[in-house]
Formats: sequence, C-alpha cells, structure tokens
Amino acid sequence: MTGSDATSAHPTAGAPAAPAPFTADDYRARMDRAVRDATAAGLAGVLVAPGPDMVWLTGYQPPADTERLTLLVLTPDTGPVLVVPKLEAPDAEKAVGAPVLILRDWTDGVDPYGVTAPSLAANGRYGISDNTWALHLIGLQETLPGTSYTPLTNALPMLRAVKDAREVERLALAGAAADAAYEEIKKVSFAGRRETDVAADLADLLRGFGHSQVDFTVVGSGPNGANPHHEAGERVIGDGDMVVLDFGGLCQGYGSDTSRTVHVGEPTEEERRVHDLVRAAQGAACEAVRPGIACQEVDRVARAVIDKGGYGEYFIHRTGHGIGVTTHEPPYMVEGEELPLVPGMCFSVEPGVYLPGRFGVRIEDIVTVTETGGRRLNATDRGLAVVG
Amino acid sequence: MTGSDATSAHPTAGAPAAPAPFTADDYRARMDRAVRDATAAGLAGVLVAPGPDMVWLTGYQPPADTERLTLLVLTPDTGPVLVVPKLEAPDAEKAVGAPVLILRDWTDGVDPYGVTAPSLAANGRYGISDNTWALHLIGLQETLPGTSYTPLTNALPMLRAVKDAREVERLALAGAAADAAYEEIKKVSFAGRRETDVAADLADLLRGFGHSQVDFTVVGSGPNGANPHHEAGERVIGDGDMVVLDFGGLCQGYGSDTSRTVHVGEPTEEERRVHDLVRAAQGAACEAVRPGIACQEVDRVARAVIDKGGYGEYFIHRTGHGIGVTTHEPPYMVEGEELPLVPGMCFSVEPGVYLPGRFGVRIEDIVTVTETGGRRLNATDRGLAVVG
Repeated sequence: MTGSDATSAHPTAGAPAAPAPFTADDYRARMDRAVRDATAAGLAGVLVAPGPDMVWLTGYQPPADTERLTLLVLTPDTGPVLVVPKLEAPDAEKAVGAPVLILRDWTDGVDPYGVTAPSLAANGRYGISDNTWALHLIGLQETLPGTSYTPLTNALPMLRAVKDAREVERLALAGAAADAAYEEIKKVSFAGRRETDVAADLADLLRGFGHSQVDFTVVGSGPNGANPHHEAGERVIGDGDMVVLDFGGLCQGYGSDTSRTVHVGEPTEEERRVHDLVRAAQGAACEAVRPGIACQEVDRVARAVIDKGGYGEYFIHRTGHGIGVTTHEPPYMVEGEELPLVPGMCFSVEPGVYLPGRFGVRIEDIVTVTETGGRRLNATDRGLAVVG
Repeated sequence: MTGSDATSAHPTAGAPAAPAPFTADDYRARMDRAVRDATAAGLAGVLVAPGPDMVWLTGYQPPADTERLTLLVLTPDTGPVLVVPKLEAPDAEKAVGAPVLILRDWTDGVDPYGVTAPSLAANGRYGISDNTWALHLIGLQETLPGTSYTPLTNALPMLRAVKDAREVERLALAGAAADAAYEEIKKVSFAGRRETDVAADLADLLRGFGHSQVDFTVVGSGPNGANPHHEAGERVIGDGDMVVLDFGGLCQGYGSDTSRTVHVGEPTEEERRVHDLVRAAQGAACEAVRPGIACQEVDRVARAVIDKGGYGEYFIHRTGHGIGVTTHEPPYMVEGEELPLVPGMCFSVEPGVYLPGRFGVRIEDIVTVTETGGRRLNATDRGLAVVG
C-alpha cells in the first residue's frame, strides 16, 4: 500500500432525504470566516490538519492522516494554500472546495516544512488544528523558530462550535435516523444474546436508516453498564439486566449520538428510581439550555439533580460534548468551561449513574441552542423501556 | 457517547495458528529498552501517545485518541507512568502491560498537563510520539516552558523499526494470510463488476484468512490504476483492463501489505513490457536488501531499473515503508533516508509505473532484513495473472 486507509461503503436504504450539498462557495465562506476570526483574535492565520477541521473548511478528507504533511494554510495575505503530497494531489483536486484552493504539492524526499514556510510569517502566531501530528508541529517550529502556535479550539472556540441553519438541519436528520434505529432495536431479542449481537443489530439499523459511518454502538448490560466507557463484549444479556445503549455515527456528513437505557423484564424498585433520577437530571439540563449561560452551567444543573438524589459520586463524567462533522468535539459541558452558549451550538446532554459491579443508566439527547432556549434533536421516549 | 469509537468484530475462519501472546514481561522489556535507547540518545525520556507506539510498548489501545490526554511517560527515574482519563482507567487496567504501569488518572475538569508535569524534568528534552496531538504538545510546552521535544521516530529510529524474531514470525503469518487471499481473488469475476465489489471480496478474504482488521483494499482498474492513491470506486471493470490490487491489514496484531497487478483477458505487448519492467525493478530492489546499506539505496536500485527502461518519470512515489503493529510506518525506502538497514527491519518494496489516463502497475512484497540479505514474506507469483 502506498499509504492510505480504505473506507467501506454502506447501504442507505431508509436514508432521510438529502439536503442540498455544500458548494465551493460555501467552503470559501467558511475559510473567509476563519481568517476574519483569526485576525480578530490577533492571530496571523490558521493551520489546518486532515480531520474534521479540514472537512468542515474544504470538504477534503485525505485518504489517511500520516507522516506525509497535508496542511491548509489560511492567512489574510493570499488565498487558501493546501500543502499536499504529490501522490494525493489527484484526491485533493476532487474535493468540493478544491476550486478555491491554491495547491502546493511536494514529492517524497522533499522537506514539506520548507514548502510550507513561504506561506507563513517568520514571527507569526497561528491557530493550529488540535489533532495536528506533533511531528508536523515540531517540523514547523524548527523550520520557523520565530513562529508560535495555539490549539485552534482554544483560539477560535466558536469556529466550528456554532452551526448555521443548514448544519443544524443535517444534525436533525441524523438524530431522526438514530431515533428510528432506537425504535427498531427495542423490538429485537436481548435476553440470551451477546452484547456484540445487539451492537451489530444497532449498527445495521443505523446504516439502514442512512448512516454512512457507524462510530460506536455501546451495549452495556448489567455490570458492564457501570463502566461508562464499555462498548460491547461477549457477555450474554440476561433477564433482569439493565442495558445502556449509546450509538451514533455520521449521516450525510453530520453526527448522531443518543443513549437510552432499557431493561430486560421488569425492573426493581431501585433500578426504576435510579433511572428516574437520571431522566430528571437529563431533562433539567436540557431545560437549562439557553444563550448566554456558560457550558459548565449545563453540567452543574444535571449534577445538582443527581447529587440531591444521593448518587453524585456515581456520575463520573462530564455532561456533554459538541457534535457536528464529528460525533465528539468541542464545546464540552464540563465544570470549568466558561464558554457561553450561543445559538447554533449543538451538543449532547448525557448524565449517567454508574454503580460498580451492578448496573449503569445513561440518557442522552443532542440539543441545539436556539435564540430563546434549547431544542432536542432526539425525540424518542426517555422512559425505562422493557425489552425481551 | 461519552467519547470513544467502536470497532467491529470479524470472523477468523482460516486464521493461521496463533503464536504465544506477548506478556507483561515482554512489554516491560520493550519499555526498558526505550528508556535505555533514550538515555543513550541524550534524552530525558520518551512520551508516548495512543497509537502504534503505545500498543507496541504496553499492549494498551485506548478506545479512541481524543482531546482527553492519555500519555505514557518513560524515564530512568521511575517506573513507566500512564496518565489516563479516569473514565478510561478501567480499560487501561485490562491491558496486558498494565501490571507494569503506574496509572495516574485525571478527572474531567482537571488540567491533565499539570497531572503529567511532576513526571517530567523542567528542562528535559523528550522524544514524543509522532502522532501526538498538537493540542497536547502545546499543553506540555506551555506547562513546562523549559522542556523541548523531538519526534520519536527521528530520535529513536530503530525502536520499533527493528523487529525481534517473534515479531517477524507474526509478520510472516500476516503475509501468508494475504497471499492466501490473493490466490482466491484471482478466481473471482473481474469483468463487469465494480471495483468496490472486488474490493469487498478482498476484504472478506483477508478476514476469512485471519485478519482482525482490513486497512485497505485497493482495486485500481484501467485509468484508475494510474493514480497510486486510488482505492476502489464505482468504475465497472472491463475486458482489457489492467487492475492494480493492493491490500492489507492487521492479523494477530501485525500488518500485511502486498500488491499484484492482474489483467482482464490478454494484455497488450506494451502492458506486458511495463509489467515486466516493474517486476524486474521490484526483484532487483528485493535482491539489494542487506544489512548496512542505506534505506535510500533500496529506492535507488528500483528507480534505476525503471529509469533505464524509460519510464522513470512515471514512478512517482517512494519504493517502500516499514510495517509492524501498523501497516505503514518508518523506516521509509526513499531518497534522502540514510538510515542503515539492520537485521529485523521489515518493510515493503513496491515500485510502480503510472501512465496517466491509461493504466498502472505495482508489485509489492514485505521484505525482512536478515543477517546476510533479505527475505520476502510474500510468496505468490509475481507474473501478470490473467483474470476473467
């Protein structure tokens, strides 16, 4: 292999109607905005690595993110420059945003940082994609020792975090597709099957309802549900198990991510009580969403409910994360995050309670900030569904 | 989703016999060697991000590589420290190498660089994994302004590049599995089917022969074969097409990567001549492999044959790349790479000729450096197979 990773195609039966695709002009507008925001933040420009920033700004997704430098350079001085390995130039030329880009290709054996340097100011301070390889950052730092760098998410936190109406529409379609998958998964057999079997069903459903990529299908049964990071394993689901379901992926380029907790057979009084508590916390946090409050406030509202219910020590993660062209991105609904909510932000609200060795409960919706409050992009019932 | 990506399970029918798994002691030996090599290179230690370095050193693969810092700190002063998000600590504790690690977990809302700092020397120079996020490198640079960093691959180029006998055994098993897939793919229909159909067959075969992960299945027919970075598309393969096949993935934790070029029906005289030339170049480069020559020499040998044949301008990528716990890693067989070959190095030898708008040819084997020369880990026929 000369150096890339393949992706696989998936069926799209049941896919929601496709919105009009983004055009080169749409990407130009995003790149122009990035330059304006960078200038306003006192930066000389923005450096963008392969990944969600590049997808969002140009529509270009290189075949892989490797030691071969691909870097988008956005400055007020020239049009956008894409430094790209010569081998990958044909791919880059096919990107929707390519007509707007000045391609600077380089050949194996050439120093790619030297190729990049003429586009940078010798003493400039740049915002750089969070996920840029250290190899490349060090390469730039050594080639231009007068430059300095700050993570793009810290420097321009609103750049991708605030979605426009067309992006929110796509996230709503992705949410509806995930909701459809949840309605169907409740009908399958849980008892006597492995978590991985139910996870495979969930993945098939997500694809069937139009997801081009499934990022995660968590099935955490019984004690496995008490590890919030558990995905799906060989455990056979039994009667009496609580089961955390948490699933999502990309649908027409935008993410879904939702969680519901179901129960095999009738729950105990305690299981019902914990579920009610998480549901109340999740509802309160969603209700709290409105422009101007800090991200951490969403976390505090959810936490306060669970603290008051006596389970505070078992809510061991932040309340939410942003979503957009990825299923997991800034902003974070976490103590210490003082970024204010702005109309167009979209993020998960997903409090949980995790009782080690016993069971877990998590309930999650994507919420978008409106002019006056918040709107959930998931609409399935949040009650404790009994499954078979 | 609280923040990870799921992976899917694949069948392993036809898998080669599994070698004895690596133990915590094996990982301890690797970490000890990394510290010794770092000290010898004048470094204060090694910082390792999630990815192949961490897998190789500890057996630990976090559920995802994200903005949440996971970092292995190897220094001569203490045992190996793994800084890990609290949410992921249960996963880390399950890693084979975990008994050797000192876990330092941190909770959402805490500054993870502050948690890491006590393990570092204020003025130390560290090797850091090439693929560490810039976010994290900048976090360390700002927390400890006296520290400095160099990419791990530049600092300790031999650390993962030189495989021990048990690693070469695994690479040989992966190569045999890929060879078995090639023997089978020659029997399927090419003419009248899309490239993606043949690519799906290849992926199924690789999994059937024991690959746990398929990284790429390139099917480049006709003019698509002339783009060395093409993967597989909607093009319907036709009679008279040259078809470049390039496929690989992970089998029991180690990589395969092989290419053969086949032809639908009888090739023309020119197609045969170009194929013969690439085959001669590939053979000469494999024959040239021996301890002590520079990596670039392998590239030069292949290039000289193709230059002499009159197609030099159409060989537009380096001759090869290393392989190990990934399918694509240092060392690179490229002009300018003066690193000497050392017994145990394993890499691809994959010259190609790409005639724009017409067709491409690539032939690739994995080769391991022995005490006296090189040994190919792929053994299928390299002639121009005619397929139907």
